[in-house]
Amino acid sequence: MTTPAPEPRFFQPVPLDKAYRLINHGPTVLVSSAHAGEVNVMSAAWACALDFSPPKVTVVIDKATRTRALVEGSGTFALCVPSVGLAALTLGVGTDSALTVPDKLARHGVKTFHAPGHEAVPLVEGCVAWLVCRLMPEPHNQTTYDLFIGEVVGAWADERVFRAGRWHFDGAPDHLRTLHYVAGGQFYATGASLQVGSG
Amino acid sequence: MTTPAPEPRFFQPVPLDKAYRLINHGPTVLVSSAHAGEVNVMSAAWACALDFSPPKVTVVIDKATRTRALVEGSGTFALCVPSVGLAALTLGVGTDSALTVPDKLARHGVKTFHAPGHEAVPLVEGCVAWLVCRLMPEPHNQTTYDLFIGEVVGAWADERVFRAGRWHFDGAPDHLRTLHYVAGGQFYATGASLQVGSG
Repeated sequence: MTTPAPEPRFFQPVPLDKAYRLINHGPTVLVSSAHAGEVNVMSAAWACALDFSPPKVTVVIDKATRTRALVEGSGTFALCVPSVGLAALTLGVGTDSALTVPDKLARHGVKTFHAPGHEAVPLVEGCVAWLVCRLMPEPHNQTTYDLFIGEVVGAWADERVFRAGRWHFDGAPDHLRTLHYVAGGQFYATGASLQVGSG
Repeated sequence: MTTPAPEPRFFQPVPLDKAYRLINHGPTVLVSSAHAGEVNVMSAAWACALDFSPPKVTVVIDKATRTRALVEGSGTFALCVPSVGLAALTLGVGTDSALTVPDKLARHGVKTFHAPGHEAVPLVEGCVAWLVCRLMPEPHNQTTYDLFIGEVVGAWADERVFRAGRWHFDGAPDHLRTLHYVAGGQFYATGASLQVGSG
């Protein structure tokens, strides 16, 4: 189901040279993609920044996933950063596959929208950051390691928790903290901020 | 400076099929390496699990680092997972390069030890987890993306915070929580545990 974009303060553009900071702290992400009218979302703990400028990311997408066909077919995907309020959704779309549970998005309450100018890529509603990526085809990595590389071509964040190039979880509701998956349904929320030196 | 291994309870072997869980939640790591008598340690926010079994990891090691020459020369490295108590050390070894600050390890109080059977790889004292990795040479990735792939051949953790295949930060001192780097000296500690479903 595609819904209107979130209201602007929940979906502020992030300069591309700061996009790496949306995932630098290692949150679990949702990988969203669409191809030939089919939309899918899976969770991925194995996503990582790869470069600053132009920003690039890596993400592991198993051969057994439906998302893989959509990413390879469309040449594009997004990393959406869910928060504590989406923990059950994140576990659900990481557990169920669209190959065996065709209604997995509806079942887990996933709603998607599009960023202006990026209509080919669905973004997951209720996340706190989004990175739209253009697949940089690397057949050897994809085949051998299930490893995909993307160049970030658009980034946005919820200004309640990310503004001026930094996360600001302290002072925001705890349900907006990002998630770090371990295993067996267990996550950690992003915790206390520490500043070393003068910043 | 090489010191004796930590006492056993602070350095318990982790089964290799659970090694990915040491970094699945996206902590910032220290990359330690040695070659031809030279030891170095750098921090890396861009390290990530790549496979379960045999476990593999990715880590970005810039061409400007001294660590890169040691990893390429020795064909081995370790990812050491620092905790809050090592935040200043982690920032320090990520800021200073051994190329311009030859005494960077001493300056930042870094002490290393070796795991039994893995004498070629220094491990950083005071961390809460360690993954010894054998470099899987991928020249295209290394040259084009500064991206290195390693197979984990040994893993250990501090049983105060990791035991029975899981992190257990709740109930342990907060200085043993792992770190997630943002930028400019700012880190987040790993926060509250959330369990979705029955686990």
